[in-house]
Amino acid sequence: MRIALGLAYDGSFDSGWQRQRHCSSIQAHVEHALSCVAASPIEIMCAGRTDKGVHATAQVIHFDTSAIRDSYAWVAGTNHYLPSHIKVQWAKAVSDDFHARFKAKYRRYLYGLQIHAQALAHFPQGITRWPRMLDREAMQQALPSLLGTQDFSAFRDRQCQAKSPIKTIEHCELIQIPQGFLLDIKADAFLHHMVRNIVGALLAIGEHRRPVSWMDTLIASRDREQAWLTAPPHGLYLAEVGYPEIWEIPEGLQVPWFLSQFIGR
Amino acid sequence: MRIALGLAYDGSFDSGWQRQRHCSSIQAHVEHALSCVAASPIEIMCAGRTDKGVHATAQVIHFDTSAIRDSYAWVAGTNHYLPSHIKVQWAKAVSDDFHARFKAKYRRYLYGLQIHAQALAHFPQGITRWPRMLDREAMQQALPSLLGTQDFSAFRDRQCQAKSPIKTIEHCELIQIPQGFLLDIKADAFLHHMVRNIVGALLAIGEHRRPVSWMDTLIASRDREQAWLTAPPHGLYLAEVGYPEIWEIPEGLQVPWFLSQFIGR
Repeated sequence: MRIALGLAYDGSFDSGWQRQRHCSSIQAHVEHALSCVAASPIEIMCAGRTDKGVHATAQVIHFDTSAIRDSYAWVAGTNHYLPSHIKVQWAKAVSDDFHARFKAKYRRYLYGLQIHAQALAHFPQGITRWPRMLDREAMQQALPSLLGTQDFSAFRDRQCQAKSPIKTIEHCELIQIPQGFLLDIKADAFLHHMVRNIVGALLAIGEHRRPVSWMDTLIASRDREQAWLTAPPHGLYLAEVGYPEIWEIPEGLQVPWFLSQFIGR
Repeated sequence: MRIALGLAYDGSFDSGWQRQRHCSSIQAHVEHALSCVAASPIEIMCAGRTDKGVHATAQVIHFDTSAIRDSYAWVAGTNHYLPSHIKVQWAKAVSDDFHARFKAKYRRYLYGLQIHAQALAHFPQGITRWPRMLDREAMQQALPSLLGTQDFSAFRDRQCQAKSPIKTIEHCELIQIPQGFLLDIKADAFLHHMVRNIVGALLAIGEHRRPVSWMDTLIASRDREQAWLTAPPHGLYLAEVGYPEIWEIPEGLQVPWFLSQFIGR
């Protein structure tokens, strides 16, 4: 039987999604906890492998098992075995043709950033602090260049394993929050580091290191060397994954509570 | 020369304010950092000793030193030697009759709480999660009983070293935040665990375990045994300390950023 599962996690404590030999990973924690519930080894597949430090409010995974458990057992039982920074949100049986990664229609990420010249003692790990002023108007003006089906090689990490650099950004919005902003970005799929490199490019424009028109130039160059920095991971959330309706996977943007008053959809 | 200093810290990482032999403390971190800047040993005195897990946005300390440093050096230099969860906010030279503890006119604390039936993966350490519904109206009605000069022995921890259990609560307000509340409470001084025990009593009333009128009964009993639980430390902030104007100590409530949109004074 194939089970789909929704996960939220704080990425601050592990070395990223992917199972590795010598360090802790979200994948290893979840596989361990599910295997305890199933009383047999379980391997999982996720919708989007998040890097070290990146969070998820709405990761989707699937796995196959012969263990018969109801949804409540997959949720509460697995949570019992998970460390507190990882939570199963929902579970449901799906047909064998469901696949968390290959059947996803779109992924949506949020990136939160606040401007504080000085470091703060009380600053959550779920948002990035930026030390200098940003011209939000200029950043806003650069967003339309990102929309549509394009070759995004300029934002692609060298280690990216995607077959094609051509992706479709369907939605891209900068939402004002006190002393900062939230970037809300949705695409069919993202290249490795793509959101963080896009945020980096927006920061270059926001700091007036590059003109607004540079976003077009950069994308057209298809050259990662032309881009600016990769924004830090801890402001980034995988916040929604969409699938064809036939599987009835729970939908909707999931916002971490301390950002939720700024975004309402 | 006597120096006064403002401190903010996240209490999650140490065993509380007070220096102890076998565990880390805010006091030891700050004394170490100041001693590095002064190049001689420094001992400090604080306005309010916070317990393990309790935060401060506006702790005030003082110390004596023969080292000559300007305010910038006391702030930036000390921050250089401090771990990132402790920050010096300001420093100023004061006359020798200033005393962080004994000259304080009032202390003001904030206690933040949110109701979530399930634990969340993304929940800041600076607020308490409560798993059950609370009747905010009832809690609100119990607040006037707390005001004024009274014997607060019912909220006093056994280990409290205060000379007298008689304190004056000048202000006490419950501020609504999404899915929860912030208690804003101001008194000349507080007994050990007093704010957390008051929150505990409010929770008993909010859960309808006790009637609103019980707050009066409880205070009149002067008996800690009659009270309910001590609320967890991690929702609590020392957020303002007031002094006579003569010393020109920076004033005003300091709210951690992720609660600041709910409170504006």
